[in-house]
Amino acid sequence: MIAVLAGGVGAARLLTGLTSVVEPSDVLAVVNTGDDAEMHGLHVSPDLDTVTYTLAGAGNAETGWGLAGESWTVMAALERYGGPTWFRLGDRDLATHLYRTGRLAAGATLSDVTCEIVAAWGVRTRLVPMSDEPVRTCVGLASGERVDFQDYFVRLRHDVAVEALWYEGAEAARPAPGVIEALEAAELVLVAPSNPLLSIAPILAVPGIAAALERRRESVVAISPIVAGAALKGPADRLLVELGHEASPAGVARLLAAASGTLVIDNADGELAPAVRAAGMRCVVTDTVMADPQRAVALARTALAAGRAAAR
Amino acid sequence: MIAVLAGGVGAARLLTGLTSVVEPSDVLAVVNTGDDAEMHGLHVSPDLDTVTYTLAGAGNAETGWGLAGESWTVMAALERYGGPTWFRLGDRDLATHLYRTGRLAAGATLSDVTCEIVAAWGVRTRLVPMSDEPVRTCVGLASGERVDFQDYFVRLRHDVAVEALWYEGAEAARPAPGVIEALEAAELVLVAPSNPLLSIAPILAVPGIAAALERRRESVVAISPIVAGAALKGPADRLLVELGHEASPAGVARLLAAASGTLVIDNADGELAPAVRAAGMRCVVTDTVMADPQRAVALARTALAAGRAAAR
Repeated sequence: MIAVLAGGVGAARLLTGLTSVVEPSDVLAVVNTGDDAEMHGLHVSPDLDTVTYTLAGAGNAETGWGLAGESWTVMAALERYGGPTWFRLGDRDLATHLYRTGRLAAGATLSDVTCEIVAAWGVRTRLVPMSDEPVRTCVGLASGERVDFQDYFVRLRHDVAVEALWYEGAEAARPAPGVIEALEAAELVLVAPSNPLLSIAPILAVPGIAAALERRRESVVAISPIVAGAALKGPADRLLVELGHEASPAGVARLLAAASGTLVIDNADGELAPAVRAAGMRCVVTDTVMADPQRAVALARTALAAGRAAAR
Repeated sequence: MIAVLAGGVGAARLLTGLTSVVEPSDVLAVVNTGDDAEMHGLHVSPDLDTVTYTLAGAGNAETGWGLAGESWTVMAALERYGGPTWFRLGDRDLATHLYRTGRLAAGATLSDVTCEIVAAWGVRTRLVPMSDEPVRTCVGLASGERVDFQDYFVRLRHDVAVEALWYEGAEAARPAPGVIEALEAAELVLVAPSNPLLSIAPILAVPGIAAALERRRESVVAISPIVAGAALKGPADRLLVELGHEASPAGVARLLAAASGTLVIDNADGELAPAVRAAGMRCVVTDTVMADPQRAVALARTALAAGRAAAR
């Protein structure tokens, strides 16, 4: 079994590639829920949904979130009331949030509901939230304001300076059932090319998860989401710099070296391999930009081979 | 100002007629919220919405609930997950529930949100929930099972024997701000032809409301929802019998006589006028079936005239 720490779109693409070369039911993704939010009273789990929809072949590849061919009747009607409509919820996507919220209200855990939703989409890859308890990524802006993650990410379009991030609830949260066991039993653990501060750090902040990886770090392989100094999507590059890190694979290496023995970096950053090694990680240089499914498959194969080589 | 105790469709029709002959902003409807429910985590207020949509000319006249020309994308998508889809929520209707739930979560009262929703629909009639606090009509079935109102009304299609009704939360609920003052200051109070046990009784169960009407019962005019022994819509007739009342205007009179001095009954029940009077109410006999807007206007005029005559 291969375990994967997963954020949103980057993780979804890697998982698509990975499940082409590994039997999907032998892949377990531990998904960030630090982005989860209450919107209009509904429990929205953006990363879980992005991964589910993408693996089902139903995701919107252009936006990286939501469903392809979505309609927007509810949002348009919400405008009558003056919104808020900045967090776009498509009609069919809303059904997911209604179902999840109803099930949670009835006492189901987020893990339970995730299983049900994944099954309903015919996805055989195993998805589990990092925790069934709420962990919420909070953002301290340079302006002094403190905002919720979706306020920062969507409403403010992450176009603001950040001076602090924290993961509210993480200290008291427990890993979802089976997470630690899976991270221990997995042949390899991959860390998807997701935002290290917004997607991976919240997962590692859940007590026990970082320690489980540290105990087996030689067979943990991370993939850098930073290529040539920039994030392929989202604010990872800017955030790294604002929070005192380096927006490069070397900066990512210093963040992940405790939990992961290997970092896969892009050909564009080949000259940074010594810096990655200086941070204490093995370094594999390859094409990490998953512009099409074939490249996602190739990246998955490279990551698996790197992990197997390191674990020998 | 004319105040109206209101349930759903019967009240909506009466208010449509009434606001053709009285300046809408001089009409205040105190609306039943005993039917309110949490569906998928959303706060649904069926009677408030039926009245709002109907007064906006946007209601679905065929079903008596929801919006005309509604689409059902979200419900269809919810079926992927196995529902529950028995409580049909149209796409545009859902926007109302999202807005309401979001505002309540942000600390607004149900009265506040109702004002906002009514204004957004361009409705000038004043609508106020009977209480900002939760009151929930609960149904004890003859089978011994206890179910929530919408379970009884929609899921079970009120096609089951009932042996008890109660209004959970009513004792601790306060009338919404302005309700008692309006019921005292109104020139007349009308009790719409709504289900006496499911729509009017929950309103009267909120402490202070029944007493306010009793103090001025001579200028309170109720309209019987029972015509020729049957309810025009819904289970009022069956419920009245099962709960030991009479499914006739005389039975309605005995239920409402303490709060209302006059009962308007249908021509079909003219021979029951003495029984209504025996219950202690004045009785006016007219056409109460609001099959078209003209008849709703005529019924409103008759009720106003009856109240003014009685109050003299």
